[in-house]
Amino acid sequence: MGRVTARRRAKRLAAGVVSERAETLVVEEPLEIRVNGSPITVTMRTPGSDVELAQGFLLTEGMIAQRDDITTVRYCPGERDGENSYNVLDVTLHPDVPAPEVGSARNFYATSSCGVCGKSSLEAVRLSTRYSPGDDPTTVASMTLAALPDRLRSAQKVFATTGGLHGAALFNADGTMLAVREDIGRHNAVDKVIGWALENDRIPLAGTVLLVSGRASFELSQKAVMAGIPVLAAVSAPSSLAADLAKQSGLTLVAFLRGDSMNVYSRADRVT
Amino acid sequence: MGRVTARRRAKRLAAGVVSERAETLVVEEPLEIRVNGSPITVTMRTPGSDVELAQGFLLTEGMIAQRDDITTVRYCPGERDGENSYNVLDVTLHPDVPAPEVGSARNFYATSSCGVCGKSSLEAVRLSTRYSPGDDPTTVASMTLAALPDRLRSAQKVFATTGGLHGAALFNADGTMLAVREDIGRHNAVDKVIGWALENDRIPLAGTVLLVSGRASFELSQKAVMAGIPVLAAVSAPSSLAADLAKQSGLTLVAFLRGDSMNVYSRADRVT
Repeated sequence: MGRVTARRRAKRLAAGVVSERAETLVVEEPLEIRVNGSPITVTMRTPGSDVELAQGFLLTEGMIAQRDDITTVRYCPGERDGENSYNVLDVTLHPDVPAPEVGSARNFYATSSCGVCGKSSLEAVRLSTRYSPGDDPTTVASMTLAALPDRLRSAQKVFATTGGLHGAALFNADGTMLAVREDIGRHNAVDKVIGWALENDRIPLAGTVLLVSGRASFELSQKAVMAGIPVLAAVSAPSSLAADLAKQSGLTLVAFLRGDSMNVYSRADRVT
Repeated sequence: MGRVTARRRAKRLAAGVVSERAETLVVEEPLEIRVNGSPITVTMRTPGSDVELAQGFLLTEGMIAQRDDITTVRYCPGERDGENSYNVLDVTLHPDVPAPEVGSARNFYATSSCGVCGKSSLEAVRLSTRYSPGDDPTTVASMTLAALPDRLRSAQKVFATTGGLHGAALFNADGTMLAVREDIGRHNAVDKVIGWALENDRIPLAGTVLLVSGRASFELSQKAVMAGIPVLAAVSAPSSLAADLAKQSGLTLVAFLRGDSMNVYSRADRVT
């Protein structure tokens, strides 16, 4: 597991009995993502698949659209002591790709003429995305969808030991698992699987289902749309704005996917 | 409920039966927080208790330390159309309080001499906090702690209808509930209860327990420390860095608080 888990001593109280033991916890560390040498964002993440995370983040923030937009990704030493902490990644873009303005990341919220509101958040995604899930003719059998959460759980190795990780997985419409990634942040787990797809030149992710272990927020819907994923499925509840973005974008949003039941909030024609 | 929940139509598939109905979802909308007119951050939140959220955010980011540091908080119109979306809050600081530099929020990660790493994140909190939970002589009975999650759940009115909200609650050491808030983001729910305390001139929050419905990340430990809370309790798993910050700060970190069992990762002497 390397840097993914760490042991910390804890006192355990259970049914009046006190014991002391080393517990396995999920590791949380900052990752700074730079583009052409300039810091873009710092995210608290679980180490591992960092290059995928950075690439997925840049794609879903609209800074790149495909694998060829990136020339190199490398860890670089910290600012002051020159040591490599493996917590700073510098992404060099292809010379033809415009460098993002500093501070441009995660500004999907306040960029439209209606001011800061849900409508402006939707408008920003509409203006930024290069892919349109709405045109994807994929259909998925409801029985296939119902089987996915168990498959994600059995693939989530670290969650089983720590209970502290979100999972995200990509499947083909027939239920074949393409990639699964874990992270302490659900947005990071999604960026990692999308970064995996970018590395494998599979963007846009036509014909796929993205499954997340928790809730479906606006941010996760945004990431699915930006990567061209036609179906987003969540084990737990969606937000109003996640449902609104799915409807606007032609993304199929499935939530409360538990046992053989599920709710479909948009483009239910894809679920057969 | 007002803007806290919204109805969206969904197709429900359960045990082979298909129905269509309006589902109640939790509302997610952006909130822009400004200080003295300058934008500091945008967070996706559930509307409600916005003033508390802004105040709690500024406190836990180290920009203010007490109620008197703020002169006024008011909603202001959006940039372009002049309409009030109730999604932009401007906080005017007392003239004696230095205005934060733009871009200074959420930089607890990369400010120390060791570069970007967990150690630098811990160091940044040590340098920023004005309160020291380590000096707080509070003790809490384990039976009192064990009873808190049920009390949070019964106070979480919106979760019951939507399944989509995180909860945070403040208790006295004897188990008296002081405040409970909900939000789609767990950091926002914590900022709201801390902002409630600021409005009621209860900062530092000596002698209190902060309970969160989910996991304990570094960010939540940071917020507890910055508000002077001596005990942070989480229903689910902590991260390595949350445990490390608790140990460094003298914060009692309780996690996996379920039934009559719990793990205590630091300052277990406070749990009797």
